[in-house]
Amino acid sequence: MAGKTIVVVGAGPVGALAALFASSRGYQVHVYELRPDLRNAGTQPLNFTKSINLALSERGIHALRSTGNNELVQSILERTIPMHGRMIHTRSATGTISQQSQLYDVHGRYQRSIDRGEINDILLDHLASLPNVKLFFQHKLTGADFQKKKAWFEMMDKPSSSGRAREIEIDFDLMIGADGAHSATRFHMMKFARLDYQQEYIDCMWCEFKMAPNASGDFAIHPNRLHIWPAGAFMFIALPNLDKSFVCTLFGPVSLFNRLEQSSQDEIVATFDKYFPGVTDHIRPDDLVQQFRRNPHLPLINIKCSPYHFSDSVVIVGDAAHAMVPFYGQGMNAGLESVRVLFSKLDQLSRVDEALAAYTDERKADAHAIADLALANYTEMRSSVTSPVYKLRKQIEEFLYHYAPGLGWATQYSRVSFSNTRYSEVIIKSQSQKQILTWLLGSVITGGTYAAFKIFRKFFRQH
Amino acid sequence: MAGKTIVVVGAGPVGALAALFASSRGYQVHVYELRPDLRNAGTQPLNFTKSINLALSERGIHALRSTGNNELVQSILERTIPMHGRMIHTRSATGTISQQSQLYDVHGRYQRSIDRGEINDILLDHLASLPNVKLFFQHKLTGADFQKKKAWFEMMDKPSSSGRAREIEIDFDLMIGADGAHSATRFHMMKFARLDYQQEYIDCMWCEFKMAPNASGDFAIHPNRLHIWPAGAFMFIALPNLDKSFVCTLFGPVSLFNRLEQSSQDEIVATFDKYFPGVTDHIRPDDLVQQFRRNPHLPLINIKCSPYHFSDSVVIVGDAAHAMVPFYGQGMNAGLESVRVLFSKLDQLSRVDEALAAYTDERKADAHAIADLALANYTEMRSSVTSPVYKLRKQIEEFLYHYAPGLGWATQYSRVSFSNTRYSEVIIKSQSQKQILTWLLGSVITGGTYAAFKIFRKFFRQH
Repeated sequence: MAGKTIVVVGAGPVGALAALFASSRGYQVHVYELRPDLRNAGTQPLNFTKSINLALSERGIHALRSTGNNELVQSILERTIPMHGRMIHTRSATGTISQQSQLYDVHGRYQRSIDRGEINDILLDHLASLPNVKLFFQHKLTGADFQKKKAWFEMMDKPSSSGRAREIEIDFDLMIGADGAHSATRFHMMKFARLDYQQEYIDCMWCEFKMAPNASGDFAIHPNRLHIWPAGAFMFIALPNLDKSFVCTLFGPVSLFNRLEQSSQDEIVATFDKYFPGVTDHIRPDDLVQQFRRNPHLPLINIKCSPYHFSDSVVIVGDAAHAMVPFYGQGMNAGLESVRVLFSKLDQLSRVDEALAAYTDERKADAHAIADLALANYTEMRSSVTSPVYKLRKQIEEFLYHYAPGLGWATQYSRVSFSNTRYSEVIIKSQSQKQILTWLLGSVITGGTYAAFKIFRKFFRQH
Repeated sequence: MAGKTIVVVGAGPVGALAALFASSRGYQVHVYELRPDLRNAGTQPLNFTKSINLALSERGIHALRSTGNNELVQSILERTIPMHGRMIHTRSATGTISQQSQLYDVHGRYQRSIDRGEINDILLDHLASLPNVKLFFQHKLTGADFQKKKAWFEMMDKPSSSGRAREIEIDFDLMIGADGAHSATRFHMMKFARLDYQQEYIDCMWCEFKMAPNASGDFAIHPNRLHIWPAGAFMFIALPNLDKSFVCTLFGPVSLFNRLEQSSQDEIVATFDKYFPGVTDHIRPDDLVQQFRRNPHLPLINIKCSPYHFSDSVVIVGDAAHAMVPFYGQGMNAGLESVRVLFSKLDQLSRVDEALAAYTDERKADAHAIADLALANYTEMRSSVTSPVYKLRKQIEEFLYHYAPGLGWATQYSRVSFSNTRYSEVIIKSQSQKQILTWLLGSVITGGTYAAFKIFRKFFRQH
C-alpha cells in the first residue's frame, strides 16, 4: 500500500504517532487538525477541555519506541518528571497534617508526568520535517463517504468572500480517526458501520488548578510524587511540571460542584481546608477561588464501542475508540498502544480490511478492560488508599512481588503501568492472584503453611 | 408560555403530533423537515429506510385522541385495516402448507395496519391549515446552541449563487426533536446535556417486498391478519394495504443476507420455498428475486438514552429518544405516547425545565421496558409461535383472561397493544402473573385446587 494516502484526523499525541507510523511505512500522510497549530500556543490547550498533564508509562513509551526512532523517544523522556509513587495527604483525628509516601513499584519503576503540549510539540515538529507528511490545521471534518473514500473538510482559517468557511474535498485510501472522545470520524463512520456504541457520564466533574512554585522558586511539594488528597466521595490531585509548578485537579460528584458553585469565597476555602489539608498553604485562597470560578467544570465520559473500523476505509484509535476516565493514568498510553497494535496488524496482514478487523478483535477486549479498571481505580484513589486493609493487602502483594519474582507474581498496578501485558490478560491474572492470595492466607492461618506453599508454587509453574 | 415559539424538528407522524399538541396550547409552531414535502410523494418514502406499513394500536390512537380532534382521529382510523390476529404459515412434515389463525385478543380487540404515508399526510394537511403552524421542508438542522436557544438550518432547496446551500439562523423557546433514530437534535443536544447513550445493532437485517393483489384484483391472502412465516432463525411477514396489496418484510441474521446476496436466482427462490411456504405463489419468483436485489437491506438498531431533555430548551421524542426493533409493532405507538406524556407534563407543571425533567423521569423507564419487550418478541414471532408449549400457555392465559376479567388477568400482549398501562408496569404485572400461573398449575397438579384458587383470588384482590 506504499504510495497510497493515509489521512489522519486529529493531531494530538495519538494522531501524531499514527502519522509517524504511517510515514515510516512509506505512505503519503495527510494530518488534519481542527484546532490551530498548537506548537506556538504555549502549554495551555486552546479549548482547555483536556488535562494539561498526562502520565506516560511503559505502554506509551513502548509504542513510541516501536517507531524505531530512539532519538525522538529520548527527547520526549527528557521532558518528563518521574513520579515514583503516590503522596497521600491526610489530616489525623488530632488535626495534624500528614504526608504518606506509597511507592508504585518495589523494583523502582515509575510513572512519568508530561505536559500534553510538550509531547505534542515534539511529535509535530518531527512530523513537519518528514517529506511524506503534510499537516493541515484549522480543518474541520464535515463529512465522509467511506464507500467512495472521500472526505470533506471546512477550512476554518480561510473564509470565502461571502464570509463562510470554504470546504475542500479530498480522497484517501485509509482514514485514521484520532480525533478524541467526540470524534467526527466516528460520527461519520457510524453511517456506514453497524456500530454498537455506549457512552456514559460518571457522576464526577473535574476542574483544574495551577499550583505555582514556592517563594524560593522551587516545587511547593515533593516533585517526584503523584499527590493525592483523598476525601472519600471526592479528591484533589497534583502532578509536577518541569517549570516547578503543579497541575492540580479537583474531582467530585456533580452535587459537590453544584454546591461549590453556589458557595461564597470563604465557604469554598473552608471546604478545601477541611478535605484537602495543606492545599491552601500552596495555592493562595483567593487564587484558588478565582481558579475554581474561572476554569471550566467538566464532565467525565466513558466510551465503549465496536467495531473500530469499517471495511478497509476507516479506523479509529485513542479516545475516539475508547475514551476512559483518567484514574489509572492510562488514557494516552492506551491510545498510543492502540496505534502500535493497529500498525502491527497492518504489517502482518496484506489485506487492509483483514488487518483492521484483527485490530478491532484484539483491541476491543483490551480497551473495555482498561476502561473498567480505570473506573474501579477512582474508588481506590479517593478512599481505599487510606484504609488499613488496603495498605495491608498492598504490603503482602508487594512482599510476594519483591521476593518471588520468579513465580510471576506482580501487582495489577505494575502490570498495567510497567508492562505491555494485554489489559484483558491483566484482569485475568489479577483475579487468579486474588483467589490464590485469599486461599493462601486462609491456609497460613489454619496452619497448613507448607502444603499451601507447595500448591502455590505449583500454580505459578502452570501459569 | 403561549405566544412563545416551539420548533419541532422532523415532520413524521411523531413530529406532526407534537406540532398539533403545541398548536392547540397556543404556541407559535415551526416544523422543520429534512426531506421534501412528503404529501405528494405517494406512499413510497423517499429514502425508503422506514417501513411503509405500521401497526397502530391503542396507545397511538389514545395519543391522537388526546388532541381533542376526533374528526382527525376518525379520518386516520378510516385509512386503517384491522388485523384481528396472526396468521401462521407453516409446512408440515408431509409437505402440506398450513395456515393457522391466532387471534390477538379474546375480547375481539385488534391491531390496525396503516400506511406511514397516509397517517403522515392526514396530520400534515391538518397542520398546514392551522394559523399558528408553519411547515418548512428540505431544512436540515446543522447546529444548535441550547443555552442561547438558537439553531441553524441549511435550506437544501435554495442554493446560494455559489451553489452552496444557504443557512438560516432561528430562535426558539423550546425545540422538540422528533427526527428519528439518527436524530440531529439529539446529536447537538449531546454537546450540552451529559447524555448517557447506548446504541446496539441486533444481528438482524430486513428487506421489504410488495405482494400485489391477486389475478382477480383481491387480497392475495387473508386481509385481516398479520401474516408470519416463522423459520426459527429468521422470518417473513406481511401486512395488508388498503389497495389490497401487502407490504412484506424478510427479517434474518446478517449471515442469511450475506448468503442470499451471493446466491443465484434459483437459490433465492429455493430458500423462500423451503422456509416461507406459499410466498412464491403470491409473489412471482422473478419479481421476488428482483425486489430482494433492488430493495435495500437494512439493519435494526436499538437505542436507549437518558436524559431526553436539556434545561428548558430541548426535548427528544419518538425514535430520537427510543428507537426500538419493530417486533412488537410499538415503535410509532410509543412515539405518539411519548408526545402525549410530554404535553401532559407541560400542562401540569408551570416550569418548562421541571416538566421536561418529569417527562424524562417517567418516560425513560417505559421506553426501556418496551425496547426490551420488542427484542424478546423477535424470538416469539420467528419461532415460539409454532411450539406446542407456547400454544398451551397462550390457551391457558386466554382462558383466564376471558373468564376472569374481574381478576384483572390480562396477557402481556393485550396490555401492550390494547391498553395504556405504562410499559414498565406491563412488565411487572406480566412477571407476577407468570409466577402465579406456574404456581397455580403446580398446585392443580398436586391436588390443592381449591386452596390454590383461594390464594389466587386473594392475590388479584390485592393487586
